[in-house]
Amino acid sequence: MVQYQPIDRTFHALADPTRRAVLERLGRDSATITELAEPFGISLTGMKKHVQVLEDAGLVTTEKIGRVRHCRLGPRRLEEETAWIEKYRSMLEARYDRLGAFLERTRPSGDQP
Amino acid sequence: MVQYQPIDRTFHALADPTRRAVLERLGRDSATITELAEPFGISLTGMKKHVQVLEDAGLVTTEKIGRVRHCRLGPRRLEEETAWIEKYRSMLEARYDRLGAFLERTRPSGDQP
Repeated sequence: MVQYQPIDRTFHALADPTRRAVLERLGRDSATITELAEPFGISLTGMKKHVQVLEDAGLVTTEKIGRVRHCRLGPRRLEEETAWIEKYRSMLEARYDRLGAFLERTRPSGDQP
Repeated sequence: MVQYQPIDRTFHALADPTRRAVLERLGRDSATITELAEPFGISLTGMKKHVQVLEDAGLVTTEKIGRVRHCRLGPRRLEEETAWIEKYRSMLEARYDRLGAFLERTRPSGDQP
């Protein structure tokens, strides 16, 4: 059985254009569910589900005041996600370097200037 | 109707610890589906599904030779994903800076040294 980690929830949360746009919107200012739903033309129920996914990932924090749920950016800073992607890209670069070195070694001598 | 983009497929592909581990494994060397499945103790069918998700995201390329499917890293370099995360983190920092400036402005004068 796979044990899901915080980084899994973050990448899952980011894998949707509406959820990424909600984060960008909350970066400007906090908002209610209604304010978030309106510009996307989606239902309150649909937006609540997106916000729940973002909240589970620590990307959004919500607070219910009276009957209105207020949303703002949460504590998650994407440090772990940045580190994973950077490690992966370093590995890709090392592979290209090795491939380049291999091609250099195996180049027919007739190609040399 | 939401139109999914390449970046959505990438983040979805990265949102699973087995799939991230497969990418790290393929960073060392190419492998068959059987070789990938064995260390994770999952079925060939399960691994094929994971590889399909990675292939849809451009993170893995597969080639069937005879009856065996060989897997290696694909063309996607995570440039768009890195850019999105960097933009988000810059926005977070700007928010903290604004909050800091606000706290500085509103600090009671009695707290000053």
